[in-house]
Amino acid sequence: LRKDGRVAPPPVEHYALNKLTSTSNPIANDERVLILTPLARFYQEYWDNLAKLNYPHELISLGFITPKTREGDAATAALQSAIAATQSGPIDNRFASVTILRQDFDPPIVSQNEKERHKISNQKVRRESMSRARNSLLFTTLGPSTSWVLWLDADIVETPSTLIQDLARHDRPILVPNCYQRFYDPNSKKMSVRPYDFNSWQDSETSLELASKMDPDEILLEGYEEMPTFRTLMAHLNEPSGDPDTIMELDGVGGTALMVKAEVHRHGAMFPAFAFYHLVETEGFAKMARRLGYFCWGLPNYLVYHYNE
Amino acid sequence: LRKDGRVAPPPVEHYALNKLTSTSNPIANDERVLILTPLARFYQEYWDNLAKLNYPHELISLGFITPKTREGDAATAALQSAIAATQSGPIDNRFASVTILRQDFDPPIVSQNEKERHKISNQKVRRESMSRARNSLLFTTLGPSTSWVLWLDADIVETPSTLIQDLARHDRPILVPNCYQRFYDPNSKKMSVRPYDFNSWQDSETSLELASKMDPDEILLEGYEEMPTFRTLMAHLNEPSGDPDTIMELDGVGGTALMVKAEVHRHGAMFPAFAFYHLVETEGFAKMARRLGYFCWGLPNYLVYHYNE
Ligand SMILES: Nc1nc2c(ncn2[C@@H]2O[C@H](COP(=O)(O)OP(=O)(O)O)[C@@H](O)[C@H]2O)c(=O)[nH]1
Ligand SMILES: Nc1nc2c(ncn2[C@@H]2O[C@H](COP(=O)(O)OP(=O)(O)O)[C@@H](O)[C@H]2O)c(=O)[nH]1
Ligand SMILES: [Mn+2]
Ligand SMILES: [Mn+2]
Repeated sequence: LRKDGRVAPPPVEHYALNKLTSTSNPIANDERVLILTPLARFYQEYWDNLAKLNYPHELISLGFITPKTREGDAATAALQSAIAATQSGPIDNRFASVTILRQDFDPPIVSQNEKERHKISNQKVRRESMSRARNSLLFTTLGPSTSWVLWLDADIVETPSTLIQDLARHDRPILVPNCYQRFYDPNSKKMSVRPYDFNSWQDSETSLELASKMDPDEILLEGYEEMPTFRTLMAHLNEPSGDPDTIMELDGVGGTALMVKAEVHRHGAMFPAFAFYHLVETEGFAKMARRLGYFCWGLPNYLVYHYNE
Repeated sequence: LRKDGRVAPPPVEHYALNKLTSTSNPIANDERVLILTPLARFYQEYWDNLAKLNYPHELISLGFITPKTREGDAATAALQSAIAATQSGPIDNRFASVTILRQDFDPPIVSQNEKERHKISNQKVRRESMSRARNSLLFTTLGPSTSWVLWLDADIVETPSTLIQDLARHDRPILVPNCYQRFYDPNSKKMSVRPYDFNSWQDSETSLELASKMDPDEILLEGYEEMPTFRTLMAHLNEPSGDPDTIMELDGVGGTALMVKAEVHRHGAMFPAFAFYHLVETEGFAKMARRLGYFCWGLPNYLVYHYNE
């Protein structure tokens, strides 16, 4: 005990980053995974899906960051109930640790309505704000024994329960599955699927040329008719009965579900909250990783599903 | 206890980043400071100087990263002895926590000899490697309750014992003191001081013009006759009996001693290990912070001293 009654500090902690692995066989190597989620709305389906991941939960830590808005407060409360249930349930279901951060800056636009948030005029400030949220979460929760970081948005409601193993197995520094959405098709009168996330792409001559003529602060956005880029979009390359192991190189990645070897982040790859080669957030992250010598990959036939509002 | 005998996970941890402060009165506000040091050589004078900082040690955490080289092994061993002595000494002298990381990549050149490491041809790879070391240390040790990050090189052997309070008092996102070196002047036959770190500067028209003509991967370096930049160097603006509170805006900063509000790093400012606006490492960090909306400042008349080999 200190003079003031506080306990003495813990002993020195040593971590040999050079012995930390991130391999194609992460369970055998006891590799710790940090799942990071920026969260503005809570969906029970997201949590249930997370809870059924069959990677050993004792190797999984969870990190969340929620905005200081009324919606963020509600999401935080719902998240806490869900966590409480899981962490007091069967011991093998419990996660190694859970951290919830409240964001230290205000989001630029209040509405989380899909139409509003996808307006092209709102994208730059919105995605720069998302970058700051992701960075705050990353810089604050990444630990010295984290092998992998799995980014998973709070509205990803369906993934294979083997998601972590399936992605790690490819042994890539950065790997992104294809993010789709289930919807009711009024024509066929059946449930069907359609692409949701268009941020995983390969550059085109047009996109590179557009970028080369932009002002330093301007950014390229994908999926807007007003700004055709002719990039090759992974979203469009899905073959319903194709090999789920099909892999392609990417120049930009989306972040709805994104597997990253921790060393990529540790060496400095973050989410630029400013135009970086005319890219921001997860697409800028891909470019930054490339500048650090890492390549990005995607799985066009391996699907995860985004909530349908 | 889990089925396999391990203990159950700790409860959820909540951190309100929006309530974390970094103010001009850090002691009164119980602000935690993380002192980060990339360390290739251990100097007892560095440690003694650190140990005599009179900021409450229970609010100070220390983080080190050492290279996996013979020199790094020796430095780590010496560091461990020094830590052991302090952490088993009087309780009020003990630091809140100490983390030592071993680097997961090889340094590009083996010699730590001053002449060799300052050769212009060695600078780009060397400083990119230093960036990766700094980022690994930062991403891995920054916690959710860190208010300030003080970067302090392992060869800074003399600072005022009020260093933390003195720098925090100016309430700047990024603040750098002037890094000098003591030496024996054969002319006056007395000990004297001279500038050591030239990385704290204001841009000039020439430097901006030089940069605008460079290849994307080329970097500007400061303090080399081969590449005159005509920047305003803080190193040359010291007035021996000037006001130590004199403050100036900077476009580039050195990292021998560098005080940063944790939120600057948390929002994404790191040390680019690639040409970023033709800058790398601490100078690139300054530019990145600027892109995030933060300004850099320097104290020309407030000195810290670098070891003299
Ligand atoms: N911390 C934080 N999370 C947010 C904010 N806005 C959205 N999110 C979360 O970030 C992720 C991506 O945002 P979302 O609006 O779904 O993006 P979209 O699907 O690309 O339109 C989701 O998990 C959201 O819940 C914000 O302002 N702060
Ligand atoms: N982890 C790590 N630290 C290093 C390495 N090289 C130097 N350092 C440390 O980084 C700091 C700056 O390096 P130094 O060689 O003193 O730079 P200079 O004074 O600018 O020439 C010092 O604290 C060194 O001990 C390295 O390869 N790895
Ligand atoms: Mn979404
Ligand atoms: Mn030095």
